[in-house]
Amino acid sequence: MAELDFIKGLLGQQPFPLPDELLMGIGDDCAVVQQDEDTSLLYTMDSLIEGVHFDLRFHPLFLLGRKALAVNLSDIAGMGGKPLFALLSICLPAGFSEVDQGEFMAGFFSMAREFGVTLVGGDTVSGASLSITVTLIGSMATRSICFRGGAGAGDEVWVSGFLGESSVGLLLLQSGRGEGFKELYTAHLDPTPCIALGQLLADSGLVTSMMDISDGIGTDLSHICGQSSCGAVIHGDTIPSSAMMKEACFELEVSPLQMACCGGEDYELLFTIPKGCGEQISGLVHGKLGLCLSQIGSIDDGSGVRLHHGDEVSDISFQGYEHG
Amino acid sequence: MAELDFIKGLLGQQPFPLPDELLMGIGDDCAVVQQDEDTSLLYTMDSLIEGVHFDLRFHPLFLLGRKALAVNLSDIAGMGGKPLFALLSICLPAGFSEVDQGEFMAGFFSMAREFGVTLVGGDTVSGASLSITVTLIGSMATRSICFRGGAGAGDEVWVSGFLGESSVGLLLLQSGRGEGFKELYTAHLDPTPCIALGQLLADSGLVTSMMDISDGIGTDLSHICGQSSCGAVIHGDTIPSSAMMKEACFELEVSPLQMACCGGEDYELLFTIPKGCGEQISGLVHGKLGLCLSQIGSIDDGSGVRLHHGDEVSDISFQGYEHG
Repeated sequence: MAELDFIKGLLGQQPFPLPDELLMGIGDDCAVVQQDEDTSLLYTMDSLIEGVHFDLRFHPLFLLGRKALAVNLSDIAGMGGKPLFALLSICLPAGFSEVDQGEFMAGFFSMAREFGVTLVGGDTVSGASLSITVTLIGSMATRSICFRGGAGAGDEVWVSGFLGESSVGLLLLQSGRGEGFKELYTAHLDPTPCIALGQLLADSGLVTSMMDISDGIGTDLSHICGQSSCGAVIHGDTIPSSAMMKEACFELEVSPLQMACCGGEDYELLFTIPKGCGEQISGLVHGKLGLCLSQIGSIDDGSGVRLHHGDEVSDISFQGYEHG
Repeated sequence: MAELDFIKGLLGQQPFPLPDELLMGIGDDCAVVQQDEDTSLLYTMDSLIEGVHFDLRFHPLFLLGRKALAVNLSDIAGMGGKPLFALLSICLPAGFSEVDQGEFMAGFFSMAREFGVTLVGGDTVSGASLSITVTLIGSMATRSICFRGGAGAGDEVWVSGFLGESSVGLLLLQSGRGEGFKELYTAHLDPTPCIALGQLLADSGLVTSMMDISDGIGTDLSHICGQSSCGAVIHGDTIPSSAMMKEACFELEVSPLQMACCGGEDYELLFTIPKGCGEQISGLVHGKLGLCLSQIGSIDDGSGVRLHHGDEVSDISFQGYEHG
């Protein structure tokens, strides 16, 4: 869920005392509504707009259908939840054929199958360009929900996977230099949401705050800091990036560190845990899922997100990817 | 919820046996998910696209904000439900100012206040033109839900309010002849969803099928007939239309009956009840809400929707408003 900045300023117009069962409204990966004593429902909604979020010159429709659901799944992962139901609204331009529609929907359903999601409704409309909005509904144990606001000074900051793959992949696609870099452009075209990882982390009981990485850690960690009333220091040499990503950055003449911190669309998870719990959590995740985690910094009493790299310190708060 | 025709053809790709708690997926005003022994959740999603569903030359942004929520509220009304939470995704074109955004959201929140809806999330993106997608979540007693598929031969067909006001109002706005016809163009610009009426009808226990009228009764009654495996006869001289609407049709040189049957965007309710229950239901509704209902026809063993007018009979199945 991207920022509803202009809506936030108007939330004073919300009708009345918010309902008691609304545990989280605007301001986290998902809205959270308590369902019964133990369980909550999660709601998220994301739109993809042609020419802003995707380029049909290199984005196959099958993969676009997958991605339209994946970006919403990633928001459910950011809370630690289980996805259940989706609604899909699609705006079709003139010339979008039935074959095109079939490819898009085949992709959407293939992602739905992988993650146990049932499409239950939506809307089809016509318009000047292709745009897609998905609402995804999930659920989870209320006590395990990982909000953004629970980090505290001393906590360690961790991420999953490699960062910057997707944004470098997009640069490669835009410049027609993707050959030999399939892992990178696939990270952009067909991202994999971290549903199982999110659930494992939430169930561990160790995570103090979590969110998915959609705008780059410069922006996303700023959200955790803002909502947790703290600051963060991250160390450039600990940010996980692959050899292939560095090689592509060399060819593209861009900074791997810049792409890893501020590139966006990683759809990995960013989370905090109490100091000293790193070995336990990385052992658990490697053992159960075969995935690698990296500590990239720590939470402190300061403000904003400060990147230490060599002898330099720079403030990268909200230095993220703005894709509209 | 407009038709997901192309998706329907692909539903065979849905992953697995549908979850037991999904009482209704695609194919009614709302998806219905059983929440506990007594209660179900309702989900609906509708998009409004600039140049297709609204024209900013005559649609004030405050009223557009109201309508974006109202069309979804109407889907909840069509089941008899109570609206609770909304998610809003809005695609903003360049040049859409903060003042514009403020007017739109003030309208959205004014409608939300009237119907007790809390905005809990969404997305803001940029794009070439203004488009708005709302997901609305409601709830209701499972035993009272009014689906489209429960009509039976012999049932009476009823509607609320006057039909054709909105579509004639739109013609007036498009031709710059709105003066003196405020009720008509207001029906298009600022429709009132029938939430209280839907709940009263559902609670009455008399209604065998119900939906909101968004595409005109030619199309909407066809949906009830299709899902109830029956046909319907309606009588032109019983279709409720106002004197003002007839006067405007005379000036515009269009057929009032055509506009009332096939104009669309009425956002009134269309429902069926067992033969002989009309006096009871219209007395109840007039007594509690001061609203008028009209019987327009009856369900039979035939197929499609047949309009009797004078000596003529015409098939108006799916002869509805196609607004994209």
